Amino acid sequence: MKLWQKNTDSLKEVETFTVGKDRELDLFLAPYDVLGSLAHIKMLEKVGLLSTEELTELEIGLKNIYADILAEKFSLDEDVEDIHSQIEFLLTKKLGDAGKKIHAARSRNDQVILDLKLFFRNEIENLVHEVNAFFELLLQQSEKYKNYLFPGYTHLQLAMPNSFGLWFGAYAESLVDDIITMHASWQIVNKNPLGSAAGFGSSFPIDRKYTTELLGFDELNYNVVYAQMSRGKTERVIAQALSNIASTLARMSMDACLYLNQNFGFISFPDELTTGSSIMPHKKNPDVFELIRGHCNRIQALPNEILMMMTNLPSGYHRDLQLLKEHLFPAIQNLRSCINMASLMFQHIEVKENILEDEKYKYLFTVEEMNKLVLQGIPLRDAYKKIGADVEAGSFTTDRKIAHTHEGSIGNLQNEKIRSMMQNVISRFTFKEVNDALQKLIQ
Amino acid sequence: MKLWQKNTDSLKEVETFTVGKDRELDLFLAPYDVLGSLAHIKMLEKVGLLSTEELTELEIGLKNIYADILAEKFSLDEDVEDIHSQIEFLLTKKLGDAGKKIHAARSRNDQVILDLKLFFRNEIENLVHEVNAFFELLLQQSEKYKNYLFPGYTHLQLAMPNSFGLWFGAYAESLVDDIITMHASWQIVNKNPLGSAAGFGSSFPIDRKYTTELLGFDELNYNVVYAQMSRGKTERVIAQALSNIASTLARMSMDACLYLNQNFGFISFPDELTTGSSIMPHKKNPDVFELIRGHCNRIQALPNEILMMMTNLPSGYHRDLQLLKEHLFPAIQNLRSCINMASLMFQHIEVKENILEDEKYKYLFTVEEMNKLVLQGIPLRDAYKKIGADVEAGSFTTDRKIAHTHEGSIGNLQNEKIRSMMQNVISRFTFKEVNDALQKLIQ
Amino acid sequence: MKLWQKNTDSLKEVETFTVGKDRELDLFLAPYDVLGSLAHIKMLEKVGLLSTEELTELEIGLKNIYADILAEKFSLDEDVEDIHSQIEFLLTKKLGDAGKKIHAARSRNDQVILDLKLFFRNEIENLVHEVNAFFELLLQQSEKYKNYLFPGYTHLQLAMPNSFGLWFGAYAESLVDDIITMHASWQIVNKNPLGSAAGFGSSFPIDRKYTTELLGFDELNYNVVYAQMSRGKTERVIAQALSNIASTLARMSMDACLYLNQNFGFISFPDELTTGSSIMPHKKNPDVFELIRGHCNRIQALPNEILMMMTNLPSGYHRDLQLLKEHLFPAIQNLRSCINMASLMFQHIEVKENILEDEKYKYLFTVEEMNKLVLQGIPLRDAYKKIGADVEAGSFTTDRKIAHTHEGSIGNLQNEKIRSMMQNVISRFTFKEVNDALQKLIQ
Amino acid sequence: MKLWQKNTDSLKEVETFTVGKDRELDLFLAPYDVLGSLAHIKMLEKVGLLSTEELTELEIGLKNIYADILAEKFSLDEDVEDIHSQIEFLLTKKLGDAGKKIHAARSRNDQVILDLKLFFRNEIENLVHEVNAFFELLLQQSEKYKNYLFPGYTHLQLAMPNSFGLWFGAYAESLVDDIITMHASWQIVNKNPLGSAAGFGSSFPIDRKYTTELLGFDELNYNVVYAQMSRGKTERVIAQALSNIASTLARMSMDACLYLNQNFGFISFPDELTTGSSIMPHKKNPDVFELIRGHCNRIQALPNEILMMMTNLPSGYHRDLQLLKEHLFPAIQNLRSCINMASLMFQHIEVKENILEDEKYKYLFTVEEMNKLVLQGIPLRDAYKKIGADVEAGSFTTDRKIAHTHEGSIGNLQNEKIRSMMQNVISRFTFKEVNDALQKLIQ
Repeated sequence: MKLWQKNTDSLKEVETFTVGKDRELDLFLAPYDVLGSLAHIKMLEKVGLLSTEELTELEIGLKNIYADILAEKFSLDEDVEDIHSQIEFLLTKKLGDAGKKIHAARSRNDQVILDLKLFFRNEIENLVHEVNAFFELLLQQSEKYKNYLFPGYTHLQLAMPNSFGLWFGAYAESLVDDIITMHASWQIVNKNPLGSAAGFGSSFPIDRKYTTELLGFDELNYNVVYAQMSRGKTERVIAQALSNIASTLARMSMDACLYLNQNFGFISFPDELTTGSSIMPHKKNPDVFELIRGHCNRIQALPNEILMMMTNLPSGYHRDLQLLKEHLFPAIQNLRSCINMASLMFQHIEVKENILEDEKYKYLFTVEEMNKLVLQGIPLRDAYKKIGADVEAGSFTTDRKIAHTHEGSIGNLQNEKIRSMMQNVISRFTFKEVNDALQKLIQ
Repeated sequence: MKLWQKNTDSLKEVETFTVGKDRELDLFLAPYDVLGSLAHIKMLEKVGLLSTEELTELEIGLKNIYADILAEKFSLDEDVEDIHSQIEFLLTKKLGDAGKKIHAARSRNDQVILDLKLFFRNEIENLVHEVNAFFELLLQQSEKYKNYLFPGYTHLQLAMPNSFGLWFGAYAESLVDDIITMHASWQIVNKNPLGSAAGFGSSFPIDRKYTTELLGFDELNYNVVYAQMSRGKTERVIAQALSNIASTLARMSMDACLYLNQNFGFISFPDELTTGSSIMPHKKNPDVFELIRGHCNRIQALPNEILMMMTNLPSGYHRDLQLLKEHLFPAIQNLRSCINMASLMFQHIEVKENILEDEKYKYLFTVEEMNKLVLQGIPLRDAYKKIGADVEAGSFTTDRKIAHTHEGSIGNLQNEKIRSMMQNVISRFTFKEVNDALQKLIQ
Repeated sequence: MKLWQKNTDSLKEVETFTVGKDRELDLFLAPYDVLGSLAHIKMLEKVGLLSTEELTELEIGLKNIYADILAEKFSLDEDVEDIHSQIEFLLTKKLGDAGKKIHAARSRNDQVILDLKLFFRNEIENLVHEVNAFFELLLQQSEKYKNYLFPGYTHLQLAMPNSFGLWFGAYAESLVDDIITMHASWQIVNKNPLGSAAGFGSSFPIDRKYTTELLGFDELNYNVVYAQMSRGKTERVIAQALSNIASTLARMSMDACLYLNQNFGFISFPDELTTGSSIMPHKKNPDVFELIRGHCNRIQALPNEILMMMTNLPSGYHRDLQLLKEHLFPAIQNLRSCINMASLMFQHIEVKENILEDEKYKYLFTVEEMNKLVLQGIPLRDAYKKIGADVEAGSFTTDRKIAHTHEGSIGNLQNEKIRSMMQNVISRFTFKEVNDALQKLIQ
Repeated sequence: MKLWQKNTDSLKEVETFTVGKDRELDLFLAPYDVLGSLAHIKMLEKVGLLSTEELTELEIGLKNIYADILAEKFSLDEDVEDIHSQIEFLLTKKLGDAGKKIHAARSRNDQVILDLKLFFRNEIENLVHEVNAFFELLLQQSEKYKNYLFPGYTHLQLAMPNSFGLWFGAYAESLVDDIITMHASWQIVNKNPLGSAAGFGSSFPIDRKYTTELLGFDELNYNVVYAQMSRGKTERVIAQALSNIASTLARMSMDACLYLNQNFGFISFPDELTTGSSIMPHKKNPDVFELIRGHCNRIQALPNEILMMMTNLPSGYHRDLQLLKEHLFPAIQNLRSCINMASLMFQHIEVKENILEDEKYKYLFTVEEMNKLVLQGIPLRDAYKKIGADVEAGSFTTDRKIAHTHEGSIGNLQNEKIRSMMQNVISRFTFKEVNDALQKLIQ
């Protein structure tokens, strides 16, 4: 059933093909569609396109629907093609023609891009909080394991001493930079597109600043052609930020799989977090990390997929845009799951002690020993020659002591500074403004 | 020739293969390698690893090399594998063993990531200024052509009136959001990696805060493992920001190619900016826009390429990283050229007048006429029916007047607001702090 | 429930995360898992690892399950993690310990890669037949519209006369080349991996040639390490072939959207195949083509996604592989839908007559007129000058006749040759051998 | 200088931008441009568009140019924009107006796509021979090291015994499948596009079958619109085949880097093939493999890049196509270098003996020991219990003997079968037909 019936019905096959997965994916957008409509009708009343009575009626109707959505008592009727139609249909059933008025001075395109932005804002907020919790866990493990040395590799070859303090801290700091890119996407998302109508504005005297304020947006997507163009672009910049977080998780998972491998054997996990075999007692398959890696690598391919679907399309709405949510929505959920699973794993990680005691790691300390000589006043060139000669003669010895004291090194992790960078970035997200506005709108 | 000769020479084939394009691409890094070394030796002297005399000597030597580089009197000797070796070699030739001291408490990895960051900072600054100049041109053309209406399309079908005021303004506003992502990459780039040595820090008591200050960085890449991990990631986030700008340019170019097509015929360009044929007088091939589109689409594929090269590599330096600059460096130059060429084209664009007078565009105004009825008090449903009936009867008429007054619409472009958003974003780049610091370092 | 219970249960969260979408996607593999097991047990009996009685019992059990699957009376029990376990479980319930014997000399990895290959073979066969039917439609429309000229564009600029005979035929011929790449993937898929066990073979004296014959494979994936490595690679080469077909469809859809645009207006479709608006009578939105384009562009991004998930993984099985089917399985179904929808659209396409009569297309004929002069004996240079002068003086005239007679040109489409190329490629797929073998196995 | 001067000169900036890297990259196409012209003029004479005298003159001129190109005495004049112009210019200088006749019934587009196909055919032939030589080396090393066991990993966890016989053989067999995809690209490339002119054919009565025969093509790209559309597509399918070979090399390199790592320590290389440090004697950096991996991963991203540049472009020539060669030409050369470097490395690889003697690898043999019990008649379930109990009690022992005899397993590598598959695939490339035809054309 379509509310704005066209002259001719589409063929059933055409309808099935064009609706695609919308009915399923639109459920994610349901609460946001209501919020957007609430702001829109308040504005319509303000500029005289709706009477105060109509506004009151419609507000009550929409708030009831919102409550039903939260209570999971909401679904799309069999023959309804999307969420916008369902809500309009429910209102019209209850309020008659007034129900249709929520659509005045708006178009479907307008509604979808608004719903998407409201939805993405919420997902970004959830994600940032979850990343931050994971970040805190990493810092905590960094402190706990700060004296656990293990080999640092370059070219995958044994190079210098590394520590689990550094290792955990490195991924924590990586997340700070990832969240910087997420904040860029937040700024791009958090601009109000409402009022762009089909992408070319409206001849009704609507007040876009008012809806901007009501919905807690930082500012407007001013130009209406750009507001419509932000579709596809919004999805892309979010996907880029997701891919950055995913990249950090994927790499950490690759390290974990390697370090769990018996040839390394630096870390282990309780049996209930790995899979194994009673006949191969050595096997502790890191399925969770492999799947985090797989999911996160797929997420890294997502911005490219979105680009492939958008590239070379001239400006103006195209139906192709409808498909962007099919992989993006699950990607957000998958990334959140991956963060949660990585948290579970790293809470229970067991790091082996005294790894570097092993004879095979002795030469990790050659540079350390050379530096000690230099600091005792021996010229670099001579120190270098002496150590080289010892090594060649097989007489190289080391006390396996290291004295790294500078900022960010083994003995001086600077985790507090890293935490403060993260807090600083997170404080720039205007979550509170958004939530306060929405709270006011719905209460 | 290698300064730190290994025991065994590599095979010639191995050397050719491993050096690759480094000798050529390293020239881009030359001035930054000197600047990095200047900061490093000042710090070495501060912490007592270099005498004041040695510092003075080395500073003079490095500043002379810097002057030679600026004067284009610098090149890599035949048998020198990279820029770092060449500079160390020049210093050693002049100063003897002291020349080698610039390498103390540092590693090649350290130097490369630092050089890259200094180079990228400079390129970002250039790019932002060029984007801003192009942005200003777009706003100027938006104002100039604000009354030039043409068809707006959705689904590539005639939909509603659009204007060249909106069209130029839309792409200007798009650049604002692109620069937001470039600012994210700036924040990530503008952290000091120096001191991470081979990626695991140093046992020398170096002062990383001091080099941070000397080089004008916002702050440190604290964790040394992360500092090394920022290689690859830095390239990726820059490529993402480049791809966003490229995406805006590519889409604008696609529009331009379409609007120049004779079936549209909305715009034209002077003959010397297009290519044609004396026998096909109608042909005005938009080669410049096609090539902008091609280059920019390639740039959009770059983040994916970088990811493909980095994905699933465990942490720690890998030689693969060396190859990242091969496509990234030219991409930056290409994007800058594309911006310049797009500026040249849009400075000379000629927009056709009175496009919408054509009878075939009459129905673009049906929604306008319906809205007029509504604003006269006729209920939407009735207005809709009336216009529908007129259209069906062939009696639909329109005065082709539009009355869009809301923010961001045809009659109210809000270009000042868009400009102010751009200025606000650009003001957040710490270009001045960077340039002041470098000026002080080199003077 | 897991048939090969490990010592320790996994945490519920770990189980949910690791099972992922397997329960849902495994249903696609169900019939193939049975077929694979049927071949495996026949071989086990042949080499003496199963008695004839056991074989008979197991065959009956498996054939019953197969019948249930075909009759859609099969599903995974609540607590069963995958299809292999469900089938083993059903057999064991009925036959006791004998049920477990289907797993002898095999591993889960072995089974999955075999099931995937059997499934892909079937999907490739379906797809090739559907592509061929679409190809025939295109050739038919090419013949029907062979005299319908319209403008040919280069640089999106009017260039020379083109025809719908050529246009349909071009996409038909494009599909021939696409099917060549699909045939490459067929050859790669159609090799037997069974017997590779966990990827390193088995110490049981299995007979891999026998299962190769039973399952109708062209030959073996001989090397067992490679047989396992073919996982991921199989998916990738299929995705490449899918992307080639998708590329042809996407481009044809872009053309269709453009030609349906009112500024071109070369084609139209019945109302029930487009979407429109009663108030905007000019609108005939080509949603179907836009969605074909969108789906097909996404499919073009799929090989890259698979690569991103596999790149830099060392050899040997990784759990990441499990995720490859999540986007690949739906992609195959989507591509098949797209072909069907494109068929529906092109069956009902209406091509406008006499397009080139329009005055604005006059200059498309300048080269034709020049060639006529040359064929009359006037030197090229003089003919060129004359036409150029006529054009400049505004006196250029043309009878709009074209005389293209060479192979593949407007007057000589060579569709029969194109058809014969397609039949030749399709004849190389060993579909019959495969189906005969499977028929024999299951009857 | 342009041979077909337009009315108005382009701006210098426009010219520089549009010429781009053509002057440099066109040199790769030089000999093929001559060959294409030779075939074209023979055909022109056959159909009466050229006199026999003119043909003779032009043939002599073109053959001289060809000889100059082979002798590296050919270059583009300063002001010449591309290879086609240079050759036409040289002929015209010598033969006057007759020189221009090589362009009759042809267009620039026609020439470029023909040159590209001739060039790609030659590159494919070179590549296939080099891959085959590398394949032979792998089989040879597989035989040499067939008794060298080492751990097989699944999930990167110790699993079962593997052998270097299997490992080398697996990558050899992988190349067979890669060459199947290269053969698909060969079939697509090896069709004659000549005669499509600007993409819409010609009104001259040209004989495309004759040029097909002269140039040794398998058959025609019949439809002229498709012939032009094959541009972009040809590049893409070649890139896909390159990416498949690259994928095999990259993965093999990743394995090599890992196995060279000291925690594995399965292989080593002579010092002159690795890079190291006299102070860190343990370091043997596998730079060559890291760079092969990096180059090959980049090549794997190439098909996606080409797609990104072509997607959503309507049919008909676009200037964007010019840019496709910029990354594709070097990619072919890079891949060839990588194959050569991998050959160099694997010729000198040293594999460690008796790796599995190490106590830590004992449990790799649990499945072997269980299978032995089963083959002695003990039911699987009981065998499984016994081994499980031994393992748990710490009493598990093994003679570290394995008895893998089936096809493709450790004891039965089937390298001859793999070789015969490769020879079979290679025999399908029509290299001889091509070379014979070209030889005849140029002699």
